[in-house]
Amino acid sequence: MADKVVLAYSGGLDTSVICRWLQDTYQKEVVTFTADIGQGEEVEPARAKAEALGVKQIFIEDLCEDFVRDYVFPMFRANTLYEGEYLLGTSIARPLVAKRLVEIAQETGAEAISHGATGKGNDQVRFEIGAYALDPDINVIAPHREWDLNSRGALMKYCEERQIPVEFTRGHESPYSMDANLLHISYEGGELENPNIEPNEAMWRRTVSIQDAPSEPERITIRFQRGDPVSVNEVQSMTPASILSTLNEIGGRNGIGRSDIVENRFVGMKSRGCYETPGGTILLKAHRAMESITLDREVTHLRDELMPRYAKLIYNGFWWSPERLALQSFIDKTQEPVSGVVSLSLCKGNVVIMGRESESSLYDTMAVTFDEDEGEYDQADATGFIRLNALRLRTGARLGRKHGS
Amino acid sequence: MADKVVLAYSGGLDTSVICRWLQDTYQKEVVTFTADIGQGEEVEPARAKAEALGVKQIFIEDLCEDFVRDYVFPMFRANTLYEGEYLLGTSIARPLVAKRLVEIAQETGAEAISHGATGKGNDQVRFEIGAYALDPDINVIAPHREWDLNSRGALMKYCEERQIPVEFTRGHESPYSMDANLLHISYEGGELENPNIEPNEAMWRRTVSIQDAPSEPERITIRFQRGDPVSVNEVQSMTPASILSTLNEIGGRNGIGRSDIVENRFVGMKSRGCYETPGGTILLKAHRAMESITLDREVTHLRDELMPRYAKLIYNGFWWSPERLALQSFIDKTQEPVSGVVSLSLCKGNVVIMGRESESSLYDTMAVTFDEDEGEYDQADATGFIRLNALRLRTGARLGRKHGS
Amino acid sequence: MADKVVLAYSGGLDTSVICRWLQDTYQKEVVTFTADIGQGEEVEPARAKAEALGVKQIFIEDLCEDFVRDYVFPMFRANTLYEGEYLLGTSIARPLVAKRLVEIAQETGAEAISHGATGKGNDQVRFEIGAYALDPDINVIAPHREWDLNSRGALMKYCEERQIPVEFTRGHESPYSMDANLLHISYEGGELENPNIEPNEAMWRRTVSIQDAPSEPERITIRFQRGDPVSVNEVQSMTPASILSTLNEIGGRNGIGRSDIVENRFVGMKSRGCYETPGGTILLKAHRAMESITLDREVTHLRDELMPRYAKLIYNGFWWSPERLALQSFIDKTQEPVSGVVSLSLCKGNVVIMGRESESSLYDTMAVTFDEDEGEYDQADATGFIRLNALRLRTGARLGRKHGS
Amino acid sequence: MADKVVLAYSGGLDTSVICRWLQDTYQKEVVTFTADIGQGEEVEPARAKAEALGVKQIFIEDLCEDFVRDYVFPMFRANTLYEGEYLLGTSIARPLVAKRLVEIAQETGAEAISHGATGKGNDQVRFEIGAYALDPDINVIAPHREWDLNSRGALMKYCEERQIPVEFTRGHESPYSMDANLLHISYEGGELENPNIEPNEAMWRRTVSIQDAPSEPERITIRFQRGDPVSVNEVQSMTPASILSTLNEIGGRNGIGRSDIVENRFVGMKSRGCYETPGGTILLKAHRAMESITLDREVTHLRDELMPRYAKLIYNGFWWSPERLALQSFIDKTQEPVSGVVSLSLCKGNVVIMGRESESSLYDTMAVTFDEDEGEYDQADATGFIRLNALRLRTGARLGRKHGS
Repeated sequence: MADKVVLAYSGGLDTSVICRWLQDTYQKEVVTFTADIGQGEEVEPARAKAEALGVKQIFIEDLCEDFVRDYVFPMFRANTLYEGEYLLGTSIARPLVAKRLVEIAQETGAEAISHGATGKGNDQVRFEIGAYALDPDINVIAPHREWDLNSRGALMKYCEERQIPVEFTRGHESPYSMDANLLHISYEGGELENPNIEPNEAMWRRTVSIQDAPSEPERITIRFQRGDPVSVNEVQSMTPASILSTLNEIGGRNGIGRSDIVENRFVGMKSRGCYETPGGTILLKAHRAMESITLDREVTHLRDELMPRYAKLIYNGFWWSPERLALQSFIDKTQEPVSGVVSLSLCKGNVVIMGRESESSLYDTMAVTFDEDEGEYDQADATGFIRLNALRLRTGARLGRKHGS
Repeated sequence: MADKVVLAYSGGLDTSVICRWLQDTYQKEVVTFTADIGQGEEVEPARAKAEALGVKQIFIEDLCEDFVRDYVFPMFRANTLYEGEYLLGTSIARPLVAKRLVEIAQETGAEAISHGATGKGNDQVRFEIGAYALDPDINVIAPHREWDLNSRGALMKYCEERQIPVEFTRGHESPYSMDANLLHISYEGGELENPNIEPNEAMWRRTVSIQDAPSEPERITIRFQRGDPVSVNEVQSMTPASILSTLNEIGGRNGIGRSDIVENRFVGMKSRGCYETPGGTILLKAHRAMESITLDREVTHLRDELMPRYAKLIYNGFWWSPERLALQSFIDKTQEPVSGVVSLSLCKGNVVIMGRESESSLYDTMAVTFDEDEGEYDQADATGFIRLNALRLRTGARLGRKHGS
Repeated sequence: MADKVVLAYSGGLDTSVICRWLQDTYQKEVVTFTADIGQGEEVEPARAKAEALGVKQIFIEDLCEDFVRDYVFPMFRANTLYEGEYLLGTSIARPLVAKRLVEIAQETGAEAISHGATGKGNDQVRFEIGAYALDPDINVIAPHREWDLNSRGALMKYCEERQIPVEFTRGHESPYSMDANLLHISYEGGELENPNIEPNEAMWRRTVSIQDAPSEPERITIRFQRGDPVSVNEVQSMTPASILSTLNEIGGRNGIGRSDIVENRFVGMKSRGCYETPGGTILLKAHRAMESITLDREVTHLRDELMPRYAKLIYNGFWWSPERLALQSFIDKTQEPVSGVVSLSLCKGNVVIMGRESESSLYDTMAVTFDEDEGEYDQADATGFIRLNALRLRTGARLGRKHGS
Repeated sequence: MADKVVLAYSGGLDTSVICRWLQDTYQKEVVTFTADIGQGEEVEPARAKAEALGVKQIFIEDLCEDFVRDYVFPMFRANTLYEGEYLLGTSIARPLVAKRLVEIAQETGAEAISHGATGKGNDQVRFEIGAYALDPDINVIAPHREWDLNSRGALMKYCEERQIPVEFTRGHESPYSMDANLLHISYEGGELENPNIEPNEAMWRRTVSIQDAPSEPERITIRFQRGDPVSVNEVQSMTPASILSTLNEIGGRNGIGRSDIVENRFVGMKSRGCYETPGGTILLKAHRAMESITLDREVTHLRDELMPRYAKLIYNGFWWSPERLALQSFIDKTQEPVSGVVSLSLCKGNVVIMGRESESSLYDTMAVTFDEDEGEYDQADATGFIRLNALRLRTGARLGRKHGS
């Protein structure tokens, strides 16, 4: 009996070629795994394509709820941004795929997994580190790092020789390298490789342009419980995926969530990426507003200092690592009081906070008011507060320490 | 001869009352200091008002260039945001005022300084910690923490008794407590004290609304040298203040830079503030884009982790502290290669990056390209990279350490 | 009925005077609270003294186990040191006292608490911030900040006038200001106020000098479970307090755990303190050794970076704060695998690690060995690992970035 | 003309074999580089050995002063420790060797460098990352990762075949893998590979045992200027290397500076190492004491939080990186006031601080004293200080936030 390898299979041309290449080169029996994580195209057609390639064990799964509930929402609890701008739409999906690949390998008795990520990118790292962390004895086959089909021509010739139908090319043929899921669509490559050239308007698929967005603001509310969104516009019984999906629609039609950045890859080079994250962009802003009245100051500040590192862990593929889990314990602990409702106005690319309220609000009108405060706060306390905060500086200044520039 | 006190004097009603109160209560000779830091109203009228109050030594100064060059720009080198949102428009102006108060005290032989900040806010802390750090023997008189004129009625009665003309009230009478300078205008108090009520559109003074902004994008370029902007649209010989002023105009007419947040004050309570920072908002986005192609990855990440702390130092009033100076050494060192040009499109509240270029760009098209890369990068290297990064996780997993949730 | 105040009462002269002063000045009924936290002197005599002062409600409690289990051990899970040297012996006891003061106040219907800490130190802050965090409406009376008895003469005169027996002076009259509990003894004041004068050998009470310690090493083992010590020398059923007490004896007779430092107080000045922490010093070293084979690298590094901040929270009195609790969640999560046995040799002030073993050891002899490793590690992997780690530096160097000094 | 390769050549058996292997395998002309960095054995004999191997260009250099002045001292400015214990004796020497290898390559027209570090360790990473950062186009040949001579037998057979004299084995043949320089000697491998076995006393070469050290303390002083030691016992005109060498002798005869740890390598596994760092151990303690009276509190705390990361950079081989240089700017800035004299007593493994004095001392006896302080500090200030620090916690507690466990 042939050894088995579980392949993360999209049904597209690239992973179809990999399927055949694994069969030919390694004499492996390929098990395919195709997941719906909200990429916006049917996954079921992958079945016929896999069958056509002679695959016997085909796994096709809808993982949208798992993805949003167990990956996206925990990440958003920390207002996570990589390098100040990237909402990690691709990064956060990879650990889920890695987990299912390993589980299916265990289930089917496969000794290896394989994927279609290139040898220059972050995704290979995310898939493989995740897999190794979950199963230290798993083998990984990364065809892009091994084969000689790295040009378009070589790939086409291979298809021809092996009679792989070119219609395996996925529907949305694009001049860009794309990745899509319920959190975002990313675009890389092609003309984007010049960071001084703006992207073509036609590239964007999930959001309208600012110009095309309606002039009238759309107002919504988002309710949070313990740091996670639980409803939009107070609609009951929304699932995590339906919340994100709803916010994607609302954000998309209002031109919200486009981003065009140059980021630093884990493998060492800078890379330009364009991202559409409409729902996530709304969520990020709303979550911070929810925290602004419910989270303690020092907790907020400490979390803000740790966030870049948490983001880096996710970006670099260390979701399944003990340091991420320990940080998650910290983050989840902070979110216990983050419950309430945020009101937002969405208009032409802007997410504007209109109000925030919470039963566990730490906002104390009496303490802050410019009006009479009924003794809530004794202004005289500030004198001692300032004087002791300044004491070390005064001691230094008396010694001639220059605190000026 | 009476002791002297140097008062930070706006020419408005509040500090005029303080002037008289210092004369009456402390029998001090008051020296006034009024600075133009871009608040958008004339400072010269303060002279006549001060004279009317019997002030003999009157300091009126244009500090716009000092403010932008020595405070705003150094702060922007770190992409500084307090609590993820506040651009620190008020916070960064206070150290300059504190410095001049102390210098004028030394020049005029005054033993004390005074200011009109309340006992509940951050500004008292910023003025006083700054002053103590620069002159450890200076005395501080904070009338708001001492007197009993903390209601509007009491203040008016005091004016009447002491014949302080009510026209001393500054022109832009407002239901809000405001602070303005070349970086921003802030609004607090009044109806804003309820964080669930949105601000009245009429409140905003420096930006048009998203609805009223033009539909056509305005495109600009900003050139940076060593982390600081040196020109807008390649206009030569722009001063720091003229750059910020230009960006304010451009941003203002495109509805850019409004912010409405609940923040955590150093003295312990949460406070709701609305801010208009049009030029700063453009600058922040442009600076990050400039860094994205010129700054090393690890330098960026380390700086991002330190930024919240640097922001907190400024917010809390520790500009003139050795820890801020040491952090500034770090920040300034990072900015040496941050030079080049960023192209932006501004439209209806949005700041969109259209391109970035630099002679010291670290963006290496050959390394990143999906096309043939001429051997710049050996994909096989990724295998070892991944395997050694995963080694500790595999060792853990072999021992039964659970890396999953 | 008079208002009540709960006083942290040692039975010594100082708090006896405070008891009388509270009765006289505030007309309060004083409730005393005296705790045995291992200070090494009887607490029961405090009863008669309190009775002699007319106190009706007297709380005397043995809190040694609570202290070690719920405060000392959780703190040691992070290898906590303030400013690199101080084991926080006093700091970690204060939250427990604050907690009991507040609970007794609630139990007895008292509206206030009081303590004998001076207005210059950290302890007032720790008591009061702790109390406010646990009961926001509690009142605090800090006699040292209010009265005029701050000289020895004034205090003695007050005793004479009020007939407070001077024998209330505690047994170990000392030229130093001391604090003792099961974790440490501290010494401050007197000749120690000159940081260039070494302490008198006679000062130390819990440890012998290096000269007087035996020449022969004493060997022990400490067993840990989930980060906490559970036995010394494999003796079964040891309680937390008995473990620390045992280590104190062993360390004390071997001259271990003296420390003489200048530290930075929260209230702003530098202060010289001498500390004896024999058991804690052994425990710190042993715990780190236990972690060295059981804790993941990145978890260790992240924890090490957070430790100074955690230590500062405890030093400054923020044990009962949400940020400490969130950090504790992180720390406790890291400790799950920290179980096993450490062997130590103790001799003349030195704590030397002789061995560490654990069923959950991550130390992999096959991976590290210089001998044949049976394929556990492929040295060729290092090439790619190094090359990709260096990629960004090479890109920079190609652009003329100077990485040299 | 043959291509050249510059080899880091110790004169020992291992690098002699590498020399021959490079000549045979790559047909390269080998240029040898041998440096005296205080390893304690003559470097000149390497010349004859290299000549015997047919090497024409032989570089032998005394780099002791460069090593201590430009690498060791800058590192000690941050009280640098890796994982709380390791003084980085090997790590800090590698960047200097990498720099000279690259410079000699440029000087001699060599296209490659080579070294004798194994494929499992940190040193290969440090050499190579350093070299790549300084010359992005340099080639690296790491024989241990390429050849099949990784067992002792294979090596000996190779020697026999190629007539490499076995007396090339360096004098101090040892069952351990050792590295020595002016900062430390390290021992790894052999029986040390079992972390539960204590090292043989005979292993240690630079320090006497605690038992053998004299009973009488030896007292010394160390003077610092701007963070660096400038003299021991006030001897004038000491060079950096002579200071470290002197402290090594003093420490060594008093049994100071042994360390036995399990550390985490950059390449992913745990490794047990024993280190002797007598002078460095004294210096670390003395430097911290010097800082304790001269460094501002917040500067100290921030530096302490950054130190683990700085240590990790050095450990992992990123000395020649922009992030290390930026951190160094921060560190060097902090050290400006760190000048004065520290008195120490050294006895049987212990380094005890006896006093510290400085003209720029921030220690203010008047502020801290328990005696009358002449109004330097107003104890009443503490009330406001505490109350405002507690305000956010009280607000939280009023809302029912549980701050207790």
